[in-house]
Amino acid sequence: MRRRDLLALVGAMAGSAAMYHAMTSLGLASESTYKGPLRLEGDPNGASVLILGAGLAGMTAALELRKAGYKVRVLEFNSRPGGRNWTLRGGDSFTELGGFKQTCEFERDLYINPGPWRIPYHHRALLDYCRRLGVTLEPFIQLNHNAYLHASSAFGGAPQRIRAIKADFQGQVSELLAKVTQQGQLDEAVSKEDQAILLQALRSWGALDRDYKYNANLFSAEFRGYARDPGGGLDADPLPSAPVALSDILKSRLWRYLQSFARYNFQTTMFQPVGGMDMIGKAFAREVGDLIRYNARVTRIAQSDRGVTVSYVDTADPSDPREAKADWCVCTIPLSILGQIPTDVGSAMQAAIDAVPYAGSVKIGLQFKRRFWEEDEAIYGGITFTDLPIRQIAYPNTGFNRAGRGVLLGAYLFEGANSYEFTAMPPAERIASAVEFGALIHPQYKAEFETGISVAWHRVPFTLGCSGEWTEQARAQHYRNLCQIDGRIVLAGEHASDLPAWQEGAILSALDAIARLHQRVMRT
Amino acid sequence: MRRRDLLALVGAMAGSAAMYHAMTSLGLASESTYKGPLRLEGDPNGASVLILGAGLAGMTAALELRKAGYKVRVLEFNSRPGGRNWTLRGGDSFTELGGFKQTCEFERDLYINPGPWRIPYHHRALLDYCRRLGVTLEPFIQLNHNAYLHASSAFGGAPQRIRAIKADFQGQVSELLAKVTQQGQLDEAVSKEDQAILLQALRSWGALDRDYKYNANLFSAEFRGYARDPGGGLDADPLPSAPVALSDILKSRLWRYLQSFARYNFQTTMFQPVGGMDMIGKAFAREVGDLIRYNARVTRIAQSDRGVTVSYVDTADPSDPREAKADWCVCTIPLSILGQIPTDVGSAMQAAIDAVPYAGSVKIGLQFKRRFWEEDEAIYGGITFTDLPIRQIAYPNTGFNRAGRGVLLGAYLFEGANSYEFTAMPPAERIASAVEFGALIHPQYKAEFETGISVAWHRVPFTLGCSGEWTEQARAQHYRNLCQIDGRIVLAGEHASDLPAWQEGAILSALDAIARLHQRVMRT
Repeated sequence: MRRRDLLALVGAMAGSAAMYHAMTSLGLASESTYKGPLRLEGDPNGASVLILGAGLAGMTAALELRKAGYKVRVLEFNSRPGGRNWTLRGGDSFTELGGFKQTCEFERDLYINPGPWRIPYHHRALLDYCRRLGVTLEPFIQLNHNAYLHASSAFGGAPQRIRAIKADFQGQVSELLAKVTQQGQLDEAVSKEDQAILLQALRSWGALDRDYKYNANLFSAEFRGYARDPGGGLDADPLPSAPVALSDILKSRLWRYLQSFARYNFQTTMFQPVGGMDMIGKAFAREVGDLIRYNARVTRIAQSDRGVTVSYVDTADPSDPREAKADWCVCTIPLSILGQIPTDVGSAMQAAIDAVPYAGSVKIGLQFKRRFWEEDEAIYGGITFTDLPIRQIAYPNTGFNRAGRGVLLGAYLFEGANSYEFTAMPPAERIASAVEFGALIHPQYKAEFETGISVAWHRVPFTLGCSGEWTEQARAQHYRNLCQIDGRIVLAGEHASDLPAWQEGAILSALDAIARLHQRVMRT
Repeated sequence: MRRRDLLALVGAMAGSAAMYHAMTSLGLASESTYKGPLRLEGDPNGASVLILGAGLAGMTAALELRKAGYKVRVLEFNSRPGGRNWTLRGGDSFTELGGFKQTCEFERDLYINPGPWRIPYHHRALLDYCRRLGVTLEPFIQLNHNAYLHASSAFGGAPQRIRAIKADFQGQVSELLAKVTQQGQLDEAVSKEDQAILLQALRSWGALDRDYKYNANLFSAEFRGYARDPGGGLDADPLPSAPVALSDILKSRLWRYLQSFARYNFQTTMFQPVGGMDMIGKAFAREVGDLIRYNARVTRIAQSDRGVTVSYVDTADPSDPREAKADWCVCTIPLSILGQIPTDVGSAMQAAIDAVPYAGSVKIGLQFKRRFWEEDEAIYGGITFTDLPIRQIAYPNTGFNRAGRGVLLGAYLFEGANSYEFTAMPPAERIASAVEFGALIHPQYKAEFETGISVAWHRVPFTLGCSGEWTEQARAQHYRNLCQIDGRIVLAGEHASDLPAWQEGAILSALDAIARLHQRVMRT
């Protein structure tokens, strides 16, 4: 029985308090599995490790293993460190599968992060490396009350401010519950004493008036916003705004987006590195860059009782096969690629490698002549959600309130039909489409758009997808087989974690893998 | 009839949609009263204006009036610009009423903002000046899901994570409403079709399970947090955490704090200037500093048909009375001080000046050897709320994730008995008390505390209070009399706005005052 099941049982049989006590006594009340910098005790006596991939998992392994006394080398397909930890700036170019080459024409200092773009506060390992490696962080805004929720077929297609929908839904839900409370409908579920406090709480939480109604007045305006803000001097008095009816909110389905910001992975305080996400990859590379051989495409991974032999070619000269040998191998190659490389592992691990499809994801960065979302609409950072194929418009979380050009994320599609559609388009068409759809929310697009760049992850040669897309079933069947050391090979990366698509998963998986590898080395 | 009353009437008689249409047709659907940079058309023909006070109101007036062609001078009591726009850094010192002198011993670059400390996205005038004057902004975190809510007499005094109380309250409220919906109790208020969507919405919004219950499971954990987070490698599976019962939340009164972050004034995205709030005052002073005479204490404000004569003394040499003359006067001296200065204004304005008491407020900055709130507790920025006399602990919104010392705001009291108690203490006692109370929430205080500084606004010589504390009644009776031009004198400042204690109020009131003053000058 796993701890998770045990606790669920305690919870079901004895209630939540008992479950909490059980957790505490099982030593589980702490939250992150990261317990501070890794310490690998004991001398590996010159053992060597070959690491495949210089993403965050590979570079974490390289940094820690060298520190522990191993001889370390890293092979990396790209000509840069970081892998999916990647930032596109003016002057950068890349070629996707299918041959389309894009060059980023953004103004200097403007960028998008095509891969990971935000860091939760509870990603303790990643934050610890950022601290140790001197990566400066700034807040990433997930919830912007003044950004929009947009449904094509509701409100005549007009986007609604998040603050208004959020306040109106919460207010009218509170009004309904206050009403049934006053009618005595909660008498069985809630004590009379608690009902009295509940009514107070609903009034506070729902911005209800003295009759427990949610109406257009200056109290609800303090949450949903005003028709006219309070001002200064004569005629400073504010005007309330009119709530959206509950029925309209329900039918619009805009409530689907309301909890996005409250999810553990997206809660305040989130971060991004100042200057682009690849500041993390670059910081790792300052430590371990001397160990990395770039432009190395792995073609075969062989192992015997005595060691590992990896065949590879230089991507500039594929006709010249090369070999690297080591005692052990930490392989962080995405499963989508690894599954295509002949690899000497057992059938259990091979089945696991083959069991995980990779998610499709598309991000499109758009540069505009001015930051009209700030100037015209007072939207600083955060995300607008829409049911249009672009799904999201994310505003930059840096350079706030400045004059001049700006780059926003004009589309962020993750899985689903829209993601495949956009992946199928040539890059120029993706960008044109993002501008077309975005203009339905921000009419300024048409006059202000300058240049764009798009990354469709299924077409990115070094991953062929955005991240490992585990189903519950696949995980139950294959996950442990994927993570177990197979002979002299151990896998790491976000695919070998329960944090898919997150950098923290890559790092935690690497730390776990090399800790177990080190134990094995110490025993042999 | 005022517009506000008209609209309320429309709302009451014809419903919210009609009210919204009325607002729109009255041209009121825009939000801020700030309509971009002030344009004062016409030549003032050498008219002179004496401005009293070099806070944001006074410097806004100075900047705009000089630009419009006026001869401008400014008298300022302090030896620095900004007034309540003020930052205390290592090396700064100040003396409060009663004679206590404090010197700030913070490490270089660490600071507190004793006055205003955050800027809402809808403070359009302030943000526009920040842009025009080159003040760099960074996000101010109001809501941090991982900060605490604390009630001395609940949960054995243990602080609770905001995310947990927020998710648990919302979840259990959703469960209650889902239950009565399923029982048919909402049939009168909500259509059957809407009820079906409401149930879906409550499940999404409340993190309810398939039976519409809020329980310990991995779905609720995605909002309230896990007992053990998802990890990497083997043993990566997460553990759910146990919700706090609704009854316990209700009795704890912690729900009172849940809507703080959702208030219009505190909604994302908020800002602070990089480096301290006084970067704004300093930026204004780069423009108008040459007009300011510092260390000038005004002793008398006289006016005749022909102009204004202000008597003042240099604070270093009070025995040497001086005079400044001008055609007009913009007086931004806080009413708490102005009421004590003989001033030639009519009885209506004088009554208004005397009608507004000033709020008490206390802020205490504490320096610690390390940022333990980040290192140990993963709290980055944001605010912990408590019913202890310190009321709030606010974590710094800059220098995130760095090693070394940190300064947090160890108390922020605004009005109420606690504010008066702390004001009555000598500074050292205030700081000791803040450390004592804070240690009940963060036990690390005791070992890590180094030095502190406190500002009790009722004892600050240049304002004798934090901001004008208008009652509804006082505003109805006196506000317009305060703002009307009296002969050759017009008042400005946050006290002459409907945004008390906010810098935006000071600026908007100044813009309104000088626009009216300019009209008057153009007519005469």
